[in-house]
Amino acid sequence: MRWEGLLQSYKDFLPITENTPMLTLNEGNTPLIRLDNLSRDWGIDLYVKTEGANPTGSFKDRGMVMAVAKAKEAGSEAIICASTGNTSAAAAAYAARSGLRCIVVIPEGKIAMGKLAQAVMYGAEVVSIEGNFDQALSMVRKISETEAVTLVNSVNPYRLEGQKTAAFEICDQLGGKAPDILSLPVGNAGNISAYWKGFKEYHQAKQTGLPKMHGFEAEGAAAIVHNRVFENPETVATAIRIGNPASWDLAVNAAKESQGKIDEVSDEEILCMYRKLASSEGIFAEPASCASLAGVYKQLRNGEIKHQTKVVAVLTGNGLKDPNTAIDASPVQPVKLPNDEQAVAAHIKGVVHV
Amino acid sequence: MRWEGLLQSYKDFLPITENTPMLTLNEGNTPLIRLDNLSRDWGIDLYVKTEGANPTGSFKDRGMVMAVAKAKEAGSEAIICASTGNTSAAAAAYAARSGLRCIVVIPEGKIAMGKLAQAVMYGAEVVSIEGNFDQALSMVRKISETEAVTLVNSVNPYRLEGQKTAAFEICDQLGGKAPDILSLPVGNAGNISAYWKGFKEYHQAKQTGLPKMHGFEAEGAAAIVHNRVFENPETVATAIRIGNPASWDLAVNAAKESQGKIDEVSDEEILCMYRKLASSEGIFAEPASCASLAGVYKQLRNGEIKHQTKVVAVLTGNGLKDPNTAIDASPVQPVKLPNDEQAVAAHIKGVVHV
Repeated sequence: MRWEGLLQSYKDFLPITENTPMLTLNEGNTPLIRLDNLSRDWGIDLYVKTEGANPTGSFKDRGMVMAVAKAKEAGSEAIICASTGNTSAAAAAYAARSGLRCIVVIPEGKIAMGKLAQAVMYGAEVVSIEGNFDQALSMVRKISETEAVTLVNSVNPYRLEGQKTAAFEICDQLGGKAPDILSLPVGNAGNISAYWKGFKEYHQAKQTGLPKMHGFEAEGAAAIVHNRVFENPETVATAIRIGNPASWDLAVNAAKESQGKIDEVSDEEILCMYRKLASSEGIFAEPASCASLAGVYKQLRNGEIKHQTKVVAVLTGNGLKDPNTAIDASPVQPVKLPNDEQAVAAHIKGVVHV
Repeated sequence: MRWEGLLQSYKDFLPITENTPMLTLNEGNTPLIRLDNLSRDWGIDLYVKTEGANPTGSFKDRGMVMAVAKAKEAGSEAIICASTGNTSAAAAAYAARSGLRCIVVIPEGKIAMGKLAQAVMYGAEVVSIEGNFDQALSMVRKISETEAVTLVNSVNPYRLEGQKTAAFEICDQLGGKAPDILSLPVGNAGNISAYWKGFKEYHQAKQTGLPKMHGFEAEGAAAIVHNRVFENPETVATAIRIGNPASWDLAVNAAKESQGKIDEVSDEEILCMYRKLASSEGIFAEPASCASLAGVYKQLRNGEIKHQTKVVAVLTGNGLKDPNTAIDASPVQPVKLPNDEQAVAAHIKGVVHV
């Protein structure tokens, strides 16, 4: 039968009333893929949760469907968010689906092209400001206090409620049991908090066990790891280029309660894993997503993750969100040849024999 | 439980032996989404099959998993294809997953950026030739006859075997019954042929009924409609920019047998529906995909599709494949403002009151 989306599938675990519209773009139900090649090479049992298969290409759809449904239920006619890209795409899509106006405030520059394309296609009103993400977030918070618009950034509590459903799915996909370790990228820190909430609730209802939560910030935006705000965060992983995470305390708590850890990885480690995941497993995730796998690899080498462990790494977004980084990061570029069979055949053999 | 991909899920309907590797990137199981807003506006019961949710972002994954599994089974060490993009992405991904070499020959220029990014990231060897798609296809056919490489274009019969599974899923998702009309874009014409084969086989096994097959070419590449090869096909819908379809006869037969039709739509109609789908339903598909919906709308207006009909339109690829077209086609572009709350608030109200 047809998958009916998160609100319908997990309504018993969500803040849904008889007046909540059952909004959906059939988000959720994303594949959990076993990485056979990396599992063998690394000596662990490794899976990825491919959140890029969601309708707008990232995990943000899970929280946004809940937040927009509640905004609609409350009679709101407009939503607003600050975003480095993925949030704006999700907000704009669900606003379009439910007939709400959507205003997106983005920091100028360094927004991945695919994400900007999405927001404008879904009909959002996009405002680019001369400032970074943290300044954009501060601005929309203030505007939502004085204007008739609902804030749908992750400070909106319904966002985390929707996002926690990914933890439910992972337990279901692993046969009713949580993995040993859940690894994920940390930017604004809402997702790690939501996953932890989800694992705890599902364990209470279904005795699924609890994973250790391992979150990874990019070195140039590692506020939680270094316990200080990064005024000018910098990383190739634009989706986690955030210097003052909104859910800072929740994330620290998730790591502590679960006996996990918030750690950091370098851009080099992220890009290395970005290429490796695509070329050895056929999975193309956006750079920020690969912080989760880069972190697992780092902690395997330094002994913080043991062999035979069952690890699920969350790939938060689709690689197609950011084609420019892919082309820049690729070691092999296309070769131009004339329309001549001999030339092409010779080239192919040449590559073999070199 | 975990969806295990097409080969496992539909093995009774596929050419699988005990020696076929159960290759998968968890392709298939893509959402069937009801278009509530367009259904109401158009007076039909309209669904889209969102094939962009597949692992590489298009329907090509269905055929490629089968073709690459069979190449592996046969002991092949390399695959080759000509491609305007989606085929190359799928071929490269499954080759990476199964440890095969992948050679992709692309016509120069007009390849959507996301698709090229995928092929290089997955580690394919990409050769760009001075010619169009039809010339590239002709070349790889010849090369596969003399060199030790397996051709995985849709002339490889396993491709259509894998692709037919989308018809099975649609019947399952509609409660065991085929829709009245199946609408889809027509480029190389393999997909319409595969769907028709799938519907017939599933009907024979499970009495699901048969839909009318409505296929739509782009006007600038409408070989089947005009019954002549288009030497220099031109359309914004790059994925169906093909002037001499490989599965021409099969497509004509599918339309005839099902009492359907192969028809054409203009670039303007395609782009109009591309924007409408995103802004009124929150679904972002690549331009070629929207030929299916543009065709439905055209035939509704001229009376060839009746009110109350149950129609499934296939959205063959993810909109993120082609971000440049999205940005070019968007009526509303981002507005640049200073980092000043007052200025942004005023702008928002201004947009409301204009």
